[in-house]
Amino acid sequence: MKILGLDSSGLVAGVAVVEDQILLAEYTTNYKKTHSQTLLPMLEELRKMIELDLDTVDAIAIASGPGSFTGLRIGSATAKGLGLAMKKPLVEVPTLEGLAWNLWGSSRLVCPLMDARRNQVYTAAYEFVPQGESFQLLTVIPQEPVDIVEFLEKLNGLNREVVFLGDGVPVYLELIREHAKVPYSLAPAGCNRQRAACIAALGEIYFAAGRMVDAGEHKPEYLRKSQADQDEK
Amino acid sequence: MKILGLDSSGLVAGVAVVEDQILLAEYTTNYKKTHSQTLLPMLEELRKMIELDLDTVDAIAIASGPGSFTGLRIGSATAKGLGLAMKKPLVEVPTLEGLAWNLWGSSRLVCPLMDARRNQVYTAAYEFVPQGESFQLLTVIPQEPVDIVEFLEKLNGLNREVVFLGDGVPVYLELIREHAKVPYSLAPAGCNRQRAACIAALGEIYFAAGRMVDAGEHKPEYLRKSQADQDEK
Repeated sequence: MKILGLDSSGLVAGVAVVEDQILLAEYTTNYKKTHSQTLLPMLEELRKMIELDLDTVDAIAIASGPGSFTGLRIGSATAKGLGLAMKKPLVEVPTLEGLAWNLWGSSRLVCPLMDARRNQVYTAAYEFVPQGESFQLLTVIPQEPVDIVEFLEKLNGLNREVVFLGDGVPVYLELIREHAKVPYSLAPAGCNRQRAACIAALGEIYFAAGRMVDAGEHKPEYLRKSQADQDEK
Repeated sequence: MKILGLDSSGLVAGVAVVEDQILLAEYTTNYKKTHSQTLLPMLEELRKMIELDLDTVDAIAIASGPGSFTGLRIGSATAKGLGLAMKKPLVEVPTLEGLAWNLWGSSRLVCPLMDARRNQVYTAAYEFVPQGESFQLLTVIPQEPVDIVEFLEKLNGLNREVVFLGDGVPVYLELIREHAKVPYSLAPAGCNRQRAACIAALGEIYFAAGRMVDAGEHKPEYLRKSQADQDEK
């Protein structure tokens, strides 16, 4: 089974191809260029480098949100366009699950923090539970937009060791240090931001479980309305 | 601090740039092309994409072995060439430590298995120990070329849960299933092979600790003699 993974939900633009639990290729950039300048050129570069025939791809896994509105729209449009042209289904992988997959096998509670501005984060809490020769990702606190201090207090109540990752960590580091009363650690470079490889790897698992949608049906999950939409009310 | 990471110790060719604990870019391929066809073109592509001025790099981290003899020589020659031209030091990151870094924060014993042919693996066992807001990678069994069954029996004696990763896993899977008497899991796509991001991230930590060498001094660590060298005896 071959899965193309795309993630442009945050500053990172990422493209990856996973086949039968092996990463064939991955290209990640975390740079000030807009995703419309990076995502498709990166896919084209990677396609040429590994001589990938797009017809051999079984599905396109997309980081389906939450995230930056513009980033999600570009990722979504790209995935839909590819899916329609290639006649392949899409697999929607929640951005926060993709982030958590970076810390596969952790015994701690894994909490991705995506900065949602104004002291809010998009977050969730996951745990990895042994399942045969692998681990399964289970949700402990479902994804939500929430005040960072409120979330930290909720975590304190669970009384478990935690790992934080994501672009919200540097933004709210002082608040984490002040309010977290449970032992915590901060994921390092290479596993603390979005990776298309995680989207593709989870995509492969979800696709095998029958969790795909038609390209035409896919919509990003923003988790909350954009500022513009809110202002309209 | 900005670190360029290179890994061509196995089938994977990888290039990555890490700055102050953030991955700026990573390009990974796991394909039948030789590293001489991939490594420098990938660096050049990535350099252009993120408009990287190589003069701003502080050091070059290289997966220093063990691994494929040809792969290590190409990686080593590339890193030395870049280091001499850019007048930057090299940071030698043992390949097995780079592999283990994929599973940062695991509470299990982390055992990278690199296929060394004839039922031998290059392997080691590591553990992650909490250290402030991060984890430190500690060596439990030092790197060695060893018979896979002998190594599995050594692990059984330690009586700890284990995670295996690396290209030796599919090769020796039946032997693992037969001989491993401790609970074990197998790392999934995206964190079961070499990543230049891990080499760059560990390189940043080792560089900060003063562990660099002059480009001219660097030599790969093969761990054992090549078949050709052995046949000469």
